[in-house]
Amino acid sequence: MRLRLTPRDDSFYELFAAIGRILVDAATVLAQFLGSGQHERAELAERMQELEHAGDDATHAVLRRVNSSFVTPFDREDIYTLASRLDDCLDEMHAAVDLVVIYRVGDLLPGLSDVVQVLVRQAELTAAAMPRLRSPQGLTDYWVEVSRLENQADAVRRRLLGRLFDGSYATLEIMKHKEVVEALDRAADAFEHVAQTVETMALKES
Amino acid sequence: MRLRLTPRDDSFYELFAAIGRILVDAATVLAQFLGSGQHERAELAERMQELEHAGDDATHAVLRRVNSSFVTPFDREDIYTLASRLDDCLDEMHAAVDLVVIYRVGDLLPGLSDVVQVLVRQAELTAAAMPRLRSPQGLTDYWVEVSRLENQADAVRRRLLGRLFDGSYATLEIMKHKEVVEALDRAADAFEHVAQTVETMALKES
Amino acid sequence: MRLRLTPRDDSFYELFAAIGRILVDAATVLAQFLGSGQHERAELAERMQELEHAGDDATHAVLRRVNSSFVTPFDREDIYTLASRLDDCLDEMHAAVDLVVIYRVGDLLPGLSDVVQVLVRQAELTAAAMPRLRSPQGLTDYWVEVSRLENQADAVRRRLLGRLFDGSYATLEIMKHKEVVEALDRAADAFEHVAQTVETMALKES
Repeated sequence: MRLRLTPRDDSFYELFAAIGRILVDAATVLAQFLGSGQHERAELAERMQELEHAGDDATHAVLRRVNSSFVTPFDREDIYTLASRLDDCLDEMHAAVDLVVIYRVGDLLPGLSDVVQVLVRQAELTAAAMPRLRSPQGLTDYWVEVSRLENQADAVRRRLLGRLFDGSYATLEIMKHKEVVEALDRAADAFEHVAQTVETMALKES
Repeated sequence: MRLRLTPRDDSFYELFAAIGRILVDAATVLAQFLGSGQHERAELAERMQELEHAGDDATHAVLRRVNSSFVTPFDREDIYTLASRLDDCLDEMHAAVDLVVIYRVGDLLPGLSDVVQVLVRQAELTAAAMPRLRSPQGLTDYWVEVSRLENQADAVRRRLLGRLFDGSYATLEIMKHKEVVEALDRAADAFEHVAQTVETMALKES
Repeated sequence: MRLRLTPRDDSFYELFAAIGRILVDAATVLAQFLGSGQHERAELAERMQELEHAGDDATHAVLRRVNSSFVTPFDREDIYTLASRLDDCLDEMHAAVDLVVIYRVGDLLPGLSDVVQVLVRQAELTAAAMPRLRSPQGLTDYWVEVSRLENQADAVRRRLLGRLFDGSYATLEIMKHKEVVEALDRAADAFEHVAQTVETMALKES
């Protein structure tokens, strides 16, 4: 039940590494988007859309290759799960940008960048881990740190929501901001789920 | 790792085909419900409830049969996944009707029928694909079109939510309509997940 | 594809039984929390937090053991699924408490205790079933009753949400109470998902 990616299957590492780089790009675009004025948002939202498509293409490439390669059914399940969870990270970062656009949110919630900084760091750690999947046992620091960052994102979310509901915001604004905060929180969760998948893969190897 | 439904297992095709027909019925009831006045809603909601029960029964029949039949464990996982995702489609269409009833929503959001028309089409395509699971490779048109329809449903959802938050609705109404829109959107997603499952099954065969 | 926990693997039963007891403790703390005044909430929320950590530790112990034990890959998938779904029950009960704290909800919604009583009963049934996983076929009464309780929780949820939206609550209060109700409802769903997992395991054995 191991993810034994033999030399012949090097392309899996490359594909996962490529997805990792897309995640770093997406987190960076997200940070720029949330820090930018109204007039720059459209362009950055379009860039995020392109990154989501690039991620979909990479995920499909993984799925096609896993079926054309000689890997055992169990490896396949792990590879499917990993690809699908990496895709979730991208989806949620895209969703956060999308909600700001759909709801025409004006000024963003102060403190939102604290969550985004966590996501940038999670994306960087994930991207650094992907090329090292060959020996997942050596990745303990990665999954411990990504999980710690998720806890940190959760603490920020609680602080932001507490502030949002303290009576100083109009209800409609609360509804909009709350959804953006929750999308970012799901992104942090998604990165943790990726790390848990890698941890499980490492456990199976050991 | 293939869904090899041998002649002896014809009943699987029949069961999945039956679930496909239930989905078409449910999408039709949903369309009638959203187009009907208050006084017809109760009867249609009851009809939707019956369809959900029929779906549950069919899903259980699949699960019982998969365990009494000679299929490999891998086939089992695919059959479980497919049955479970078909059930999700029904659950979300039922949820949309249910939310309208629970929240006693008066006039429904203009444009809501645009999403429902997408669901009707997705249900029809799914029902037509189910009896052809024996050769899932021939179903490319099916999953491509269902995915395209999901993108269309998403565009409608964005338009509806944007309109809902443009300042002309009372907050309480926004909350209610938003949940109905989101349930319909999850139904469109669920149909896409079914199609992705069939695509994965086809990839494994190839 | 059976969960064949041989004598050597008795520790699995013990670990699942331990998680079952944590769930009963959590449901009890939840009932106390929702019935308590503001000043007792902090202490009970902290107790819930501790139970969540204890659950995480037990889940990790299951995952480590499943990989060091001689169990087939199929058993592994079942054990992963069961552990993960038990964890979901705890997460949702914790989330309900957490939302009350974050939103500084004052008086709780009348009738909320009706859902919590269902959760307490589901937790007790789950805890009683865990040590009997060796013969899951004998657990029919368990999963039938947990599913019946989920339907009951759903009926309560519908009644509570209907009342919440009847015009007598301020919108901000509706938003807060609604999220607490939904977290409790997801907890009842999570218990049903555990029961469905056990049912599937029993079907595979038969």
